[in-house]
Amino acid sequence: MPELIRKRYKELIEEHILDFLPDIDHKSITLYESMKYSLSAGGKRIRPMLLLAAAEFTGCKLEAAIPYACAVEYMHTYSLIHDDLPAMDDDQLRRGVPTNHIIYGEAMAILAGDGLQSAAYEAMNKDMLLYFDDPDKLKKRIRASYEIAKGSGCRGMVAGQVADIESEDKACSREMLDYIHLTKTAALIVAAVRAGAQLGGADAETLNNLTIYAENLGLAFQIADDILDVVGSEKEMGKKAGVDQVKKKSTYPSLYGLEASKAKLMELTDNAIEALSSYYDNAEFFTKLATDLAVRGK
Amino acid sequence: MPELIRKRYKELIEEHILDFLPDIDHKSITLYESMKYSLSAGGKRIRPMLLLAAAEFTGCKLEAAIPYACAVEYMHTYSLIHDDLPAMDDDQLRRGVPTNHIIYGEAMAILAGDGLQSAAYEAMNKDMLLYFDDPDKLKKRIRASYEIAKGSGCRGMVAGQVADIESEDKACSREMLDYIHLTKTAALIVAAVRAGAQLGGADAETLNNLTIYAENLGLAFQIADDILDVVGSEKEMGKKAGVDQVKKKSTYPSLYGLEASKAKLMELTDNAIEALSSYYDNAEFFTKLATDLAVRGK
Repeated sequence: MPELIRKRYKELIEEHILDFLPDIDHKSITLYESMKYSLSAGGKRIRPMLLLAAAEFTGCKLEAAIPYACAVEYMHTYSLIHDDLPAMDDDQLRRGVPTNHIIYGEAMAILAGDGLQSAAYEAMNKDMLLYFDDPDKLKKRIRASYEIAKGSGCRGMVAGQVADIESEDKACSREMLDYIHLTKTAALIVAAVRAGAQLGGADAETLNNLTIYAENLGLAFQIADDILDVVGSEKEMGKKAGVDQVKKKSTYPSLYGLEASKAKLMELTDNAIEALSSYYDNAEFFTKLATDLAVRGK
Repeated sequence: MPELIRKRYKELIEEHILDFLPDIDHKSITLYESMKYSLSAGGKRIRPMLLLAAAEFTGCKLEAAIPYACAVEYMHTYSLIHDDLPAMDDDQLRRGVPTNHIIYGEAMAILAGDGLQSAAYEAMNKDMLLYFDDPDKLKKRIRASYEIAKGSGCRGMVAGQVADIESEDKACSREMLDYIHLTKTAALIVAAVRAGAQLGGADAETLNNLTIYAENLGLAFQIADDILDVVGSEKEMGKKAGVDQVKKKSTYPSLYGLEASKAKLMELTDNAIEALSSYYDNAEFFTKLATDLAVRGK
């Protein structure tokens, strides 16, 4: 069952992922191509899937959540494009294909990232206009957009990226590492889940439980990624392996060792699952997703 | 009178320009410093002033328009920071001080730009939450935010930046140059004016007249800038003079000659003024601003 649901979510996202790019004049068409290139380069679509799942879980029609699901994936994609730039992580490969700036050049990659962030807000804002006659639904949409703004912004994803860049080539404390993981990775995952729950009009308790799930999942996700960087192959990851060590990046494996990292991954995964499965009997999708993500880092 | 009004707008903007940066954790404090650096580096504040003026002109309380005025300046500032990057225009000086990446490095400058765009939306979104009990005011705010999203995004400012970059070192048609000016410069100026008018709940006719004003002003503004690049000094502009020619950038002076450019500047300025002064007897602020901007390029 959860596999079928996930397939359905994934198909919906793939079907609509380009729908919310504005109609771009042919004089700026490279911008469209560059944004499309990175949006179409695959990826697990974890964040939009979680948004759809949380929306459905809390009673929002799936179709109504699609603009927000795509918006959150636009945010994630813009952050990857900027993250890969020479001035940042200087990565040539992502999801098995050349990174955006390798194909389109640095200037266009910067602008594609800027354009994607802007397209995300334009899509959400435009969607709000459709609900001017339904104040209740309108408010849910504003709350959802605000979750995404907070999670992707200066106290969330962007802050994490800053702390990450500033911690390179330096001894990094465990506290700092947790901060980086919470902001750089978990914040947008939490935002996706909370945005979906806002669309469904979740009560405070459900919102809280979903948040605990997402925080634990987000941290687990990053640790699994770091473990994979040590033990995985380039083929498995679609990008270079062992990069963290070469860059002297502090990670869970480098600060705690591989075994302790695996144990932490399992603990966080259990916490995530428990946050929902103890209270709801229809949380299989969330449980299965957490389990599957953890397996990557085993 | 218009001078006093302008002074009042400018003071309001300077007073509140940092108010809408999110509270940033000390672990990412460089992000705050970097954003603050560029926001505090002066500038004419044309866009937020126009937003305040249009809001007041159409009956919105000035204080209520401040978050949107600051949001539009955040957008403008983020675009300047990214524009100045080595991969883009590679400028070392802006408003008489070193550009953001010269002080904070390229990675931080990219992130400061990303963070400012995000802060703009977070501020507008947060402001909307305050009007949940007043559907009429809420709708005005959503419309204002949508104007800024459209003007700064993939059919506006970002599109213009793309076309500009792609036209470098190439013969550029007059049609293309107009497109670049309309998107890169005029779009956000139009958005500022329209956002203000949306906050005031302007009727279709007023919105239309203000749009014509802003389009003409925006084009005039860019031509004045291009003329100044030819005839001005570094001191006057706070950045290097003669840069366009060195970069072989197509401009009004390079395509039409200096005299024709000055004539065009006057024509656009007249159009801008006429769009409002023919219909309203309280448009002095707009008239004076257009006149003063045109004088720069005389």
